[in-house]
Amino acid sequence: MDIFQDKIQAIDKALGYLLPGEEEYPQTLNRAMRYSIFAGGKRIRPLLILLIAELFGLRQDDGLIPSCAMEMVHTYSLIHDDLPAMDNDDYRRGRPASHKVFGEATAILAGDALLTLALEILAQESGNGQGNYYTSSYINAVPPLDRLKILAEISRAAGVDGMIGGQIVDLESEGKEIPPQTIDYINSHKTGALFSACFRIGVILGKGTRDDFGRLNACAEAIGSTFQVVDDLLDLEGNREKMGKDKGADLKLKKATYLSHFGVEKAKALRDEKFNESKKILDYYGDRAGPLQRLVRFILYRDY
Amino acid sequence: MDIFQDKIQAIDKALGYLLPGEEEYPQTLNRAMRYSIFAGGKRIRPLLILLIAELFGLRQDDGLIPSCAMEMVHTYSLIHDDLPAMDNDDYRRGRPASHKVFGEATAILAGDALLTLALEILAQESGNGQGNYYTSSYINAVPPLDRLKILAEISRAAGVDGMIGGQIVDLESEGKEIPPQTIDYINSHKTGALFSACFRIGVILGKGTRDDFGRLNACAEAIGSTFQVVDDLLDLEGNREKMGKDKGADLKLKKATYLSHFGVEKAKALRDEKFNESKKILDYYGDRAGPLQRLVRFILYRDY
Repeated sequence: MDIFQDKIQAIDKALGYLLPGEEEYPQTLNRAMRYSIFAGGKRIRPLLILLIAELFGLRQDDGLIPSCAMEMVHTYSLIHDDLPAMDNDDYRRGRPASHKVFGEATAILAGDALLTLALEILAQESGNGQGNYYTSSYINAVPPLDRLKILAEISRAAGVDGMIGGQIVDLESEGKEIPPQTIDYINSHKTGALFSACFRIGVILGKGTRDDFGRLNACAEAIGSTFQVVDDLLDLEGNREKMGKDKGADLKLKKATYLSHFGVEKAKALRDEKFNESKKILDYYGDRAGPLQRLVRFILYRDY
Repeated sequence: MDIFQDKIQAIDKALGYLLPGEEEYPQTLNRAMRYSIFAGGKRIRPLLILLIAELFGLRQDDGLIPSCAMEMVHTYSLIHDDLPAMDNDDYRRGRPASHKVFGEATAILAGDALLTLALEILAQESGNGQGNYYTSSYINAVPPLDRLKILAEISRAAGVDGMIGGQIVDLESEGKEIPPQTIDYINSHKTGALFSACFRIGVILGKGTRDDFGRLNACAEAIGSTFQVVDDLLDLEGNREKMGKDKGADLKLKKATYLSHFGVEKAKALRDEKFNESKKILDYYGDRAGPLQRLVRFILYRDY
């Protein structure tokens, strides 16, 4: 995503600063956290937050704390998902998974630590000697109540009513025939909830109106519930090089997906429908939404 | 702890309300969360928060949200600590550990969910339809900036510079000769950090002065770093019935503890010294600190 190169660099720089240093004690844990954060992630979620907030004129640097927090929560979920007790994936993005490199105990703790750090940087207030450029920018631009709202959004989306709920139902559905409503539940919770939260956090950061909130929430729902279908399509059509994990890993585990239930054609039709839906919503913002439109195209087609 | 029975009941009632119901979807996860939360914990940490806040006149109900959040964080840490990849404990408080009852995957997710829920209830703001009596009491009594401070305290204490840091160093020290500084690091981080946070959260809730903060922070340091030593003493002298886990489990794992390094006599002397130190600090608050003094005695001697 060359057009977002500057933004991705800014996100990576902030992440590098906010994570504990590899040489700091305890080194193994810090190395494990950095290993997974800097593993070639596409930074889709932090980009979404930044691009939406910028629709409303937020200065990029003021939004880096919630963007990095979101990427930490996403990364923690990948580390825990890959564990032997969970999806038992040995590879992630073409590299050995955290538990293969550092062992299970450290992988569990690195995940725990990333989730905790995400919430810590969002809660940070000045005056405790832990201030830094990113925290100061965030605190100065975003009032306390809005910072609490962002914390509520991210913890709700990551919790039982969101990502974790989706993950447990996904695990429990392995090898079972499940009805379409359950597939919907998994998709909208496991990946959809965090995606939707990115949209709402962007609007909170940008101090958008009630109407903006409604509009972008509709867009979030359209994309959030479709992202997993697109991921499953890529999983089926992709290859190990491109995706960094075993081709068709989910089919191997006999996971019921939208794809396995409705087939490739219906999945692609759903994607096109949701893309058009979100495109129309974003058209309201005209040229300002250009970069966001391109990110949405990338999310749904991995092309822009 | 009969004298705290009313308080413990209030904490348990609030926890029962704040956790998702056992019959709600997804049931397994909700059951696992409740199984560990209602496993006979002594509620020392939430009691500490309530008693300190009440030193300054806070109404009990206004402090139940942070108290319950602290108990959730503590419980999540126990679930993850007991996992096969970590301390591999099959029993906790005389009952099978979470991973023995629900399996590893659900235990990992139940821990993740409790940590996330703790932070979610602290971040909750009114007006999103999720308000309830406990949240409303908390929000009305504690201003947004103080709520952010409490979130920062709890996430910092639970993170790399606190509990998780202590846990990884503890794991890495198994079967090794480690210097006293490392034992100190483990004790002050693995259990001490969360304990100290209880003191500071109590002062924030009670809107104590800078002096109160300094005073109670000193008390926190004294107790926080000693709690693990007391726990090790009980582990050695206790029996399976009383502690609910295998006698001397830590010695079995060849864990270096203050006890194994300095012996029982020095451990008891340290405990007495720290008890007197904290007693003197709390004497400043006179009769008002009576219940708190008894809780501190219970923490260090399991007697009051």
